[in-house]
Amino acid sequence: MENAYLDIEKNFEESEEKILELLREKKYFQCRDELLKFNAVDIAELLETVMEEEDMSKAVMLFRTLPKDISVDVFSHLDVDDQVEIINIITDPEIQYIIDELDFDDMIDVLEELPANLVDKILDKAPKSERKLINSFLNYKEDSAGSLMTPYYINLQKNWTAAEALAHIKEVGLESETIYTCYVLDSGRKLIGIVSLRALVIADDNTKVSDLMREEFVLAHVDDDQEELSELFKKYGYLAIPVVDKEGRLVGIVTVDDILDVIEEETTEDMERMGGVIDSENKDYLDLSVMGHVKARFPWLLLLMCSYFITGGIIASFEEALSAVIVLVTYMPMLMGTGGNSGTQASTLVIRGMATGELELSDCLKVAWKEIRVALLIGVALSAINYLRIVYLDGEAPLIALTVCCSMILIVIVAKLIGSLLPMLAKRIGIDPALMSGPMMASITDMISLCTYFAMAGVFLNI
Amino acid sequence: MENAYLDIEKNFEESEEKILELLREKKYFQCRDELLKFNAVDIAELLETVMEEEDMSKAVMLFRTLPKDISVDVFSHLDVDDQVEIINIITDPEIQYIIDELDFDDMIDVLEELPANLVDKILDKAPKSERKLINSFLNYKEDSAGSLMTPYYINLQKNWTAAEALAHIKEVGLESETIYTCYVLDSGRKLIGIVSLRALVIADDNTKVSDLMREEFVLAHVDDDQEELSELFKKYGYLAIPVVDKEGRLVGIVTVDDILDVIEEETTEDMERMGGVIDSENKDYLDLSVMGHVKARFPWLLLLMCSYFITGGIIASFEEALSAVIVLVTYMPMLMGTGGNSGTQASTLVIRGMATGELELSDCLKVAWKEIRVALLIGVALSAINYLRIVYLDGEAPLIALTVCCSMILIVIVAKLIGSLLPMLAKRIGIDPALMSGPMMASITDMISLCTYFAMAGVFLNI
Repeated sequence: MENAYLDIEKNFEESEEKILELLREKKYFQCRDELLKFNAVDIAELLETVMEEEDMSKAVMLFRTLPKDISVDVFSHLDVDDQVEIINIITDPEIQYIIDELDFDDMIDVLEELPANLVDKILDKAPKSERKLINSFLNYKEDSAGSLMTPYYINLQKNWTAAEALAHIKEVGLESETIYTCYVLDSGRKLIGIVSLRALVIADDNTKVSDLMREEFVLAHVDDDQEELSELFKKYGYLAIPVVDKEGRLVGIVTVDDILDVIEEETTEDMERMGGVIDSENKDYLDLSVMGHVKARFPWLLLLMCSYFITGGIIASFEEALSAVIVLVTYMPMLMGTGGNSGTQASTLVIRGMATGELELSDCLKVAWKEIRVALLIGVALSAINYLRIVYLDGEAPLIALTVCCSMILIVIVAKLIGSLLPMLAKRIGIDPALMSGPMMASITDMISLCTYFAMAGVFLNI
Repeated sequence: MENAYLDIEKNFEESEEKILELLREKKYFQCRDELLKFNAVDIAELLETVMEEEDMSKAVMLFRTLPKDISVDVFSHLDVDDQVEIINIITDPEIQYIIDELDFDDMIDVLEELPANLVDKILDKAPKSERKLINSFLNYKEDSAGSLMTPYYINLQKNWTAAEALAHIKEVGLESETIYTCYVLDSGRKLIGIVSLRALVIADDNTKVSDLMREEFVLAHVDDDQEELSELFKKYGYLAIPVVDKEGRLVGIVTVDDILDVIEEETTEDMERMGGVIDSENKDYLDLSVMGHVKARFPWLLLLMCSYFITGGIIASFEEALSAVIVLVTYMPMLMGTGGNSGTQASTLVIRGMATGELELSDCLKVAWKEIRVALLIGVALSAINYLRIVYLDGEAPLIALTVCCSMILIVIVAKLIGSLLPMLAKRIGIDPALMSGPMMASITDMISLCTYFAMAGVFLNI
């Protein structure tokens, strides 16, 4: 193969068509040859397309035509659901081969999703020490640093020279998840230094590892949440971060490629919560069943709908006043909508600020002061436009316009304050701030907007 | 320093206090010693706190007390705004030293933000070849792969042995942004292969580079958007991706640590747009001025408010009917709110699905079919609860309840369809789908909800 520039997207879509075509004609081996033009990540994506468009058994048939080593690599890039489905179809020796060849952290991910009896069967065949290691990794909390790490890292002695260290790496490097960051431990397995392969390669052969290693380093604990861990990666830009147990002993490392997935997962969770979708089980939109979608959306919609029972009650108690000045109803949606939008803007900015670590709870006074000034400017500008429209376009009485405009200013200010401070309060009492945005914000500000509006109507219109 | 475990957060906050205290007492050198307990990333964060809590001149004073090499590293981790402020205060030789010592990509980031006359002054002192290189990098579009890359990478010959390659890396490695991925070019500077340091270190000394290099690789073009580039990193998990110009010549590489920042930036932009905040200039919440906040929020709020002029018009045309059955107003906010929330849920899921690459425009029928089923189930369930409440709790006539319940089902279905399809349509015509969520969705569904409600009232109540 010479100078094969991979113009991914174009090639990819053409091949996708071709593969589906060949499959329908049951030309599995031609199909395989087409697949093998791509790397494992792309083959995995193509296989997933086959599972979706055709069926599982065809996908497995195709999977089995792949050279063994490539098949394991492809397997490691499939979605966990698809991995489990494949395992349910293939034979025990095939399963065993895949499990043996997978990177340790990928293997743990697969085992976590398999039924217990299957896991036992697989572990039965593993050597005893390996079995113990696997079991301890299976016990780490989901979404913890422990569940992301691999126990295979390069362990150097501090009195080795750079040349000795490189020779050691040459020998054991294949087994290790990464060789670019190496670790120096004391006799109690405590981490005493970190040395990069870069430092080893660039150094003179006789330089001691102890002279090359950094003795100050960032580390994570097995129970740390994956979100905190990804903050460390973002902040320091490291390729790997060591993970220690309660006794401070090094038990594994987490590499940056796994963190990219974590960041995507955490971002999706945040966005979904901000949009009123709770717990989509980390599944892709199309993979989640109709009932799954209902479960992820109904409870929150129901809760918010019930909050509107209160809003309805507020209106009911003003029914008479409203019948008297029915035109007030005309401006209700605008005030409620603008209140909701103002609140959502503020909550979005504050939630994101807290997620990226820029805003601390102690900043709440600064935030409130900024919001009040922003809200005042925006509220006055929107009101001025509204006054002109109500008096000159709609031809209503100036007192009606005053009622709407004063309400508008107050509503924008209160909505922005609540929108900014509620997420901070939520964080303070241990609730995910992301829940305090969009839909939730709209429900709360709707109530406040109505009360403000009716109060202003009382002041200006005496109703 | 022995075995210095860095329990970051605790140490950090204590030191923060201590440093501010020492600064107030003008003990700059004690302050510096306190700073030097941390690594460059943390020192940068502490300096930024000083700028915020105290003033710029104190921060610069402190910055100048740092050892020269550390000061450059710290400088590279400051926010661009703060970098520019420091440059405005320090002397020309100091500026020159920092610019010379910065990594190439960091230097370009700084130069991009400086006024043109200052850039010219700095470039005057650079050697001619360097000046040409810098100028060409300054010309790459903001947010393009070109603006993120560095021209300093390891360039290997394909007929070298692994040992020769390693010797070369030892010699030139210090200059290169990364040595973990090396590049093999042909005589026309076209990329013909990529070889990892891992492969070189593990291989036998006499293995040829041409036998170790991968000839299929993923690459980016200088004009590619940084968002596409970050998709490639997420998908393939590489540590670096090569960037080529229009003629296919290798001009630079982008490394994964820079991509973590890009992902954060792009996520923030998406979330802000979904929350109705347009263009906060990539600035942190507290760094953005009040007028900046107003500019980022007012236009969208104004546009949405104007959309409520239509909503108001719809209500106005039903004013008489509403006066006749004023109780209908009571249920208006609930229907509008639930419509908005249903739409926001759907749009959030679809926008995120498109952002992660799971959903394609061609999936729109599948999405619509899923949404209809989800909406039907949710709509019926919410309606049933409402019927009971309206008839038995509120004691209204069954026809009123029927009006509300039928509206509810229709509104949820339509809102979910619009919520899911509008972002796809937006993408199709080249508008950012993130704009079609939250606030925008609420405004659109409010109109639809009202029309549906009044239509149902016409059917059931003959008004």
